[in-house]
Amino acid sequence: MKSKNIAIGIDLGGTSIKAGLVDRQGKILKRIIIDSNAEQGPDAVINQIKSGINRLLKSNKNTVIGIGIGAPGTVNSVKGIVEDPPNIPGWTKINIGAIVKKEFGIKTFVENDANAAAIGELIYGAGKKYNNFIMVTLGTGVGGGIIFNKKIFSGETGGAGEFGHVSIDSIGRQCKCGSLGCIEAYIGKNYLLQRVSALLTEDNDTILKKYIERNDGILTPMLIQEAAEKGDAFSKSVILDAGTKLGYALASVVNVLDISTILVGGGLAGFGKMLLDPVESTLKERVLKPFRNRIVVKPAKLKNDAGIKGASALVFYKS
Amino acid sequence: MKSKNIAIGIDLGGTSIKAGLVDRQGKILKRIIIDSNAEQGPDAVINQIKSGINRLLKSNKNTVIGIGIGAPGTVNSVKGIVEDPPNIPGWTKINIGAIVKKEFGIKTFVENDANAAAIGELIYGAGKKYNNFIMVTLGTGVGGGIIFNKKIFSGETGGAGEFGHVSIDSIGRQCKCGSLGCIEAYIGKNYLLQRVSALLTEDNDTILKKYIERNDGILTPMLIQEAAEKGDAFSKSVILDAGTKLGYALASVVNVLDISTILVGGGLAGFGKMLLDPVESTLKERVLKPFRNRIVVKPAKLKNDAGIKGASALVFYKS
Repeated sequence: MKSKNIAIGIDLGGTSIKAGLVDRQGKILKRIIIDSNAEQGPDAVINQIKSGINRLLKSNKNTVIGIGIGAPGTVNSVKGIVEDPPNIPGWTKINIGAIVKKEFGIKTFVENDANAAAIGELIYGAGKKYNNFIMVTLGTGVGGGIIFNKKIFSGETGGAGEFGHVSIDSIGRQCKCGSLGCIEAYIGKNYLLQRVSALLTEDNDTILKKYIERNDGILTPMLIQEAAEKGDAFSKSVILDAGTKLGYALASVVNVLDISTILVGGGLAGFGKMLLDPVESTLKERVLKPFRNRIVVKPAKLKNDAGIKGASALVFYKS
Repeated sequence: MKSKNIAIGIDLGGTSIKAGLVDRQGKILKRIIIDSNAEQGPDAVINQIKSGINRLLKSNKNTVIGIGIGAPGTVNSVKGIVEDPPNIPGWTKINIGAIVKKEFGIKTFVENDANAAAIGELIYGAGKKYNNFIMVTLGTGVGGGIIFNKKIFSGETGGAGEFGHVSIDSIGRQCKCGSLGCIEAYIGKNYLLQRVSALLTEDNDTILKKYIERNDGILTPMLIQEAAEKGDAFSKSVILDAGTKLGYALASVVNVLDISTILVGGGLAGFGKMLLDPVESTLKERVLKPFRNRIVVKPAKLKNDAGIKGASALVFYKS
């Protein structure tokens, strides 16, 4: 079999490093997960990255044309520097791009993980056929990336697309960022579960209470989803409310950017149509008239592999 | 005297057309104002534009290297098409760029007036030394433009930068755009004056009441400014509130764009420091931490000539 051009994608996290060999179609040919060893400091993390790449290279018979790294925190993607990633203590400002390139002699690209996820959708996923889209990732945090003319719009420091910190109420809920009413403070995973838990202490008639009991008292988004799919009115209202609020925030974003295609990914996107329908209808009610007919809201495609695939997409995007 | 390269700038409005000969430094060498004749339909408006250009060309001894037109409504700046400008009845979709170019044989550039104002600040004004800035225009409407890497970021249809329709309260004041809580519904000129008038019926102790009496019962932003400058607590609180609310809206904008320099123009920018200080302090409290230290809020420079100068700047920007 003829050797094909492939990329290595590395999803750097505070707990684990996920890495894989990925082909140009976005197929993961091999994947590994290793501990970040973040508690041992940045050098330990860098060693883990190198050892992960070594393992992948050893098992590989194709041509690795580049290495892509998706990292949390502030990333200078031009230089390859990752600054102050949360959950990696002691890592202040490290040119991980240069370090990896020097070690392996392979072109290396570094991006903020949210931007990498957007580039992943652009190269392999739901964004392939669009020139412009807004990628929103719903997880513990609410983040995202902006694709304009098939390029990432990264702002002055690579930090653009922080949709989680669009406020929907200037005197609203306290967000851990210091501001008030940020959409993340309503629908970020932990905030959402807190809000729902608080409502459950009230006299709400919902099968969700039984589901939680069966799950050792722990509420998860999956339980809300299952209850809603069974027709539970309370759980459906929770998802409807989350989608409506996300629509409020994204209406402001669309009016600023004049980009009308929105892809929604991350764990909470698992709510599916029950979440995306109210996002879309709210947007169509709230954005400026000339933008209304063009609004498109779709689920992202890469799902659980968004990290590795997004990182590997950096290689095909920039090569 | 040697002939120099100059531009014609045309500020197309529903009531009047302002036009001028402008040199590369942004000096207006000659200016005219003529009626738009909008009530007579689009052909009449086009004739007025042509006759204005003819008058300017006749009086001119320099080399006109281009004509710039700033127009309200949706503008396709690549093609030169102006679509549905408010206040020009019957004008649906007209390629004014091609018409003017054909008539005079001079390169012609067309932009949305808010984007033209931003380009004006970039070429001649307060934005000259910045690669990236957000230009906010405070008038009857609240609008703006986004400059990124010294280029306008125009979105899919030239409509980016609609900062007036960033919501600060998802269940807030009704905006005429159909949404709720848009910043324009609080600090757009008419909305602001309405809100202040409503407050004045209450038992507020303010010299503003006397000022209004003296002005035939008519409240204007200038009166609020004069009263505030005299130390009137009520009027100062009105401006402080406007600046704070604008800060709320712009915090969301900065978090989306990662652009940290903000220029404020338009009539209400006349409130000066009393307005801009709370905009800046609110932004520094509310934007994400990595953006805080970089926040800069400055007045725009072009003031009343923003229309003509912005339009003429299109020529030097694109040539």
